[in-house]
Amino acid sequence: MLLEQVNSPEDLKKLSVEELKKLAEEVREFIIEIVDKTGGHLASSLGVVELTIALLKVFSPPRDEIVWDVGHQSYPYKILTDRKERFHTLRQFGGISGFPSIKESPYDAFGTGHSSTSISAALGIRIGKKLKGEEGHVIAVIGDGALTAGEAYEGLNNAGQLGEDLIVILNDNEMSIAKNIGAISNYLTKVATGENFRRAKKRLEEVTKKVFGERVYKRLKRVEDLIVKGLFSPGMLFEELGFRYVGPIDGHDLDTLIVTLKNVSKMKGPTLVHVVTKKGKGYEPAEKKPEKFHGVPPKKKKKENLPPTYTEVFSKTLVEIAGENRDVVAITAAMPSGTGLDRFKEHFPERYFDVGIAEQHAVTFAAGMAKKGLKPVVAIYSTFLQRAYDQIVHDVALQELPVVFAIDRAGLVGEDGATHHGAFDLSYLRHIPNMIVAAPKDEEELRHLLFTAIRSGKPFAVRYPRGRGYGVPLREPLKEIPIGNWELLREGKEIAILATGWTVYQALKAAESLEKKGISVTVVNARFIKPMDEELLKRIASEHSVIVTVEENVVKGGFGSGVDEFLSPWYSGRVFNLGLPDRFIEHGEQNLLRCIVGIDAERIEKKILELVGEKPSPAKST
Amino acid sequence: MLLEQVNSPEDLKKLSVEELKKLAEEVREFIIEIVDKTGGHLASSLGVVELTIALLKVFSPPRDEIVWDVGHQSYPYKILTDRKERFHTLRQFGGISGFPSIKESPYDAFGTGHSSTSISAALGIRIGKKLKGEEGHVIAVIGDGALTAGEAYEGLNNAGQLGEDLIVILNDNEMSIAKNIGAISNYLTKVATGENFRRAKKRLEEVTKKVFGERVYKRLKRVEDLIVKGLFSPGMLFEELGFRYVGPIDGHDLDTLIVTLKNVSKMKGPTLVHVVTKKGKGYEPAEKKPEKFHGVPPKKKKKENLPPTYTEVFSKTLVEIAGENRDVVAITAAMPSGTGLDRFKEHFPERYFDVGIAEQHAVTFAAGMAKKGLKPVVAIYSTFLQRAYDQIVHDVALQELPVVFAIDRAGLVGEDGATHHGAFDLSYLRHIPNMIVAAPKDEEELRHLLFTAIRSGKPFAVRYPRGRGYGVPLREPLKEIPIGNWELLREGKEIAILATGWTVYQALKAAESLEKKGISVTVVNARFIKPMDEELLKRIASEHSVIVTVEENVVKGGFGSGVDEFLSPWYSGRVFNLGLPDRFIEHGEQNLLRCIVGIDAERIEKKILELVGEKPSPAKST
Repeated sequence: MLLEQVNSPEDLKKLSVEELKKLAEEVREFIIEIVDKTGGHLASSLGVVELTIALLKVFSPPRDEIVWDVGHQSYPYKILTDRKERFHTLRQFGGISGFPSIKESPYDAFGTGHSSTSISAALGIRIGKKLKGEEGHVIAVIGDGALTAGEAYEGLNNAGQLGEDLIVILNDNEMSIAKNIGAISNYLTKVATGENFRRAKKRLEEVTKKVFGERVYKRLKRVEDLIVKGLFSPGMLFEELGFRYVGPIDGHDLDTLIVTLKNVSKMKGPTLVHVVTKKGKGYEPAEKKPEKFHGVPPKKKKKENLPPTYTEVFSKTLVEIAGENRDVVAITAAMPSGTGLDRFKEHFPERYFDVGIAEQHAVTFAAGMAKKGLKPVVAIYSTFLQRAYDQIVHDVALQELPVVFAIDRAGLVGEDGATHHGAFDLSYLRHIPNMIVAAPKDEEELRHLLFTAIRSGKPFAVRYPRGRGYGVPLREPLKEIPIGNWELLREGKEIAILATGWTVYQALKAAESLEKKGISVTVVNARFIKPMDEELLKRIASEHSVIVTVEENVVKGGFGSGVDEFLSPWYSGRVFNLGLPDRFIEHGEQNLLRCIVGIDAERIEKKILELVGEKPSPAKST
Repeated sequence: MLLEQVNSPEDLKKLSVEELKKLAEEVREFIIEIVDKTGGHLASSLGVVELTIALLKVFSPPRDEIVWDVGHQSYPYKILTDRKERFHTLRQFGGISGFPSIKESPYDAFGTGHSSTSISAALGIRIGKKLKGEEGHVIAVIGDGALTAGEAYEGLNNAGQLGEDLIVILNDNEMSIAKNIGAISNYLTKVATGENFRRAKKRLEEVTKKVFGERVYKRLKRVEDLIVKGLFSPGMLFEELGFRYVGPIDGHDLDTLIVTLKNVSKMKGPTLVHVVTKKGKGYEPAEKKPEKFHGVPPKKKKKENLPPTYTEVFSKTLVEIAGENRDVVAITAAMPSGTGLDRFKEHFPERYFDVGIAEQHAVTFAAGMAKKGLKPVVAIYSTFLQRAYDQIVHDVALQELPVVFAIDRAGLVGEDGATHHGAFDLSYLRHIPNMIVAAPKDEEELRHLLFTAIRSGKPFAVRYPRGRGYGVPLREPLKEIPIGNWELLREGKEIAILATGWTVYQALKAAESLEKKGISVTVVNARFIKPMDEELLKRIASEHSVIVTVEENVVKGGFGSGVDEFLSPWYSGRVFNLGLPDRFIEHGEQNLLRCIVGIDAERIEKKILELVGEKPSPAKST
């Protein structure tokens, strides 16, 4: 086993190209074996094994700095730099992250997770190295999908303008940019980036200039360039942005990769290397269905009769509603299956819009449709909607346009960790005027809230968690829930729990257990975070001296914070806010994390038992 | 006067091209005359007079829908559609907005204010019209500067992919894309977009295909296209994105504009028309210094010895700090003079970065530099930083990188209105873990907070208002303020005001006035919104039964909300949060708006007098 001997990039550098090819196979097997147990982003990582090896053969991190865009393709890099021994802990609590992390390793130049930040970060690192007088290359590796996001373009544009040395590797794994790649293209690329060719070209240019003068030379050169590139390369876009374009080359051909990267390493200015790879390379099931193997759960025995996921319930309900209402349109930012919109696409292809990884555009685009009387539903993960915060404020809420946000993966998502938890949406939406923000207690209520949202004619967000529902029956016909209406689930006397979303059933369970211990607890399903049910809240406050709020969102600025704001001027009882603490939450099993932050039934109960023992602080009376 | 006769786009359509030229002159004079009194975006609006007239001659809003990007160039459009009579109320309280607004007029297809949303919105409107079976063209007018923002690219990319009829007019007023424009280009464009040329071209294509076959035809066509375009047009970028490119044409030549737009109106699919205009056209001072006349204040008699603006103090202090600390770098998103970084640029050009209108990139780029040990200061308006919310969370805060955000125009900005108020920054920053958020009570404290931020080694935001400081002396050497430290300015007995930022002096003034009425008031300068001075807050709470928080930010999720969260579990006194209400605030004079929302001294006093009369609600005791 070669992999056993490779404990650092230095070890890898000693191997011959033939040995590196063998190493690639071993890395592939190693990844498949581990991810089979831990779950993870299999297909993307398998696609870049050779690219990673070539990068480590030619470049020397951490002196040379590599930024992996999104970062779910960084497994080979983690294994071949310094995390082979810990790789079996991938995505598990206390183990290594599924994404690059500067806190995890000095080899990770910049943390990623959300798409399309790599060029901007790499350019910043480049300027930093320059001003600090540090040596070394800076490389961003970005997928073709990530290139659709505006930030990538902003980064390319600025890099082209600054003209600093920067290598951007376009990892074209969808083959969406270049459909054809063959031996001749690889050959031309090798030649065009080679030392001899460059020397010859330079000489030719000098002669032309002398004979014809600067002006004619420039014009001729432009025409020549265009013809050559138009025929042989799809790189015009990048050239227009100020990049030198190299490629496309076969991303699984180690010989070509190494030669090209060596040549590129000697170039000046911003260079884009177009590498074509195959997602899931070397693992037949993943090669055939890369989308299915984009992120895979760990293998478990299949259980029968599991409740549906919130995503599935959303997916079916939206199709049901759209069947009745022809104005309903659906928008996704490159996540048709993740959000469940694939079903909508099948039923209503003409009303379905996948805009690519472009959350900002998705929201303004939806606002434009809403302006024309349509009922757009933007289905999106909580963490990715962060990127369109300004568009929600400026294009939707300010104009009071009826865009519905179906916010999936709200709350703790589990193994994807800090970059992917939907920890903030209640806080970043609640303070926006005109927004309605709701969260269902279970998958059945999701159906009615979605129905309510679409019929409301207002900017409306419904947020729901990753994973399966509580298994409640889904038989009721769709009904509208009055906006701002809370649900009193249980009447007690001493303590009132106002819970929202996934935590409602946890609060109920805690209340039942407390009842047995002689503590009488009221439980309210605060399904609207904004507006709140002020009438019910007033009544609850007047009848209870302790109120506990629970939410799967940061406490700061979230649901509980809204309750505090409402009660502060006149309530003299105590209010406790349970929810996510003011720190980024690590990765780990979803329910484990929920226990750690204290929003499951057991911790809610424990907290209330503590409170019952405490007395309020004195305050001067008015 | 022709303008007197033009009361709607229909009236305009009746005029000959010669008359329209005269109308253009009249519109120019009208704008200059009014903006001289009201202030506003003079240069951009003067630049598009002919373009607006040509659009209204060829197209028919509201049936045809025009989205003006940013919208500060929409004055001629407002005048020539339906707001001529109200134009003298521009940007004044109760008057018409300085930006397009769907609530103001049916001619405004979509509200704008922030840059680069127009293509996305227009595409949404296009799809809306299609699905609703509505007739009419959809047109986005976007400046070359706005094209640097990622959302514009996301919009172009999606529009190119969808292939729907959409006209994007690139208003190239910086001449930054096409440096040269002449008669021949105008001629070629007229020809190339004309009916005869198109018919001839189609015929030629058919013949080629028949004779040489599809494959050769395609290859030949590509080469031909490239040569023609490479020589005559800078439109490659747009063609790569799936747009048909037309131009460049002279944006002040009405004949060419009208002919071209007429031809373009018959084209199918996404079309980009490149129009070159001159900012400030027709007004000599504005033509010469368009940047100076981008936004002009109303003419007033100059007062002597006014206090410096916060921007000026920031500007000088940053240069002072950067003189001592070579790691300090400064980043602006296309606002060097607005943010005061122009001075930094003069002193330290190699450490100054204007990334264009690209806030997302600006923040990640800064994070990359911070990773290398630099001390980046991102100088930005509160409202524009909204666009980089995700990058603050994901690239800065999560990695705890020491990026300093110098947030200008925080709070109410006045005449620019709802799209430009910095109403939300305390709310969208306070809930982000690892962030430090501060606001100075005056321009002198701004200096020390900036110094503290840069030395902190942490993600740190300092927010300060638009306009002049309080005129306090600026003589002290720079000093660090302990992070989280509040300042007790005045000790009273009954009521405590915790104020932050601009409102601190207002609170002091209110307290002095209340003292005379026999009410003893404590005033605290809560210069850190996060972390708070919990020790002082505890003491204040234990000594006062009424606490009033004041801030120039929405109450929801803001500073007062943080105080509520902290006090709720144990404080039995009353807490009142003063700040911006839960609605978008209109435009109007800055201090007038501050009075309306009730955060000036007089309203703070009035509120407290009310409170003194009130009694707290009863709550069951524990």
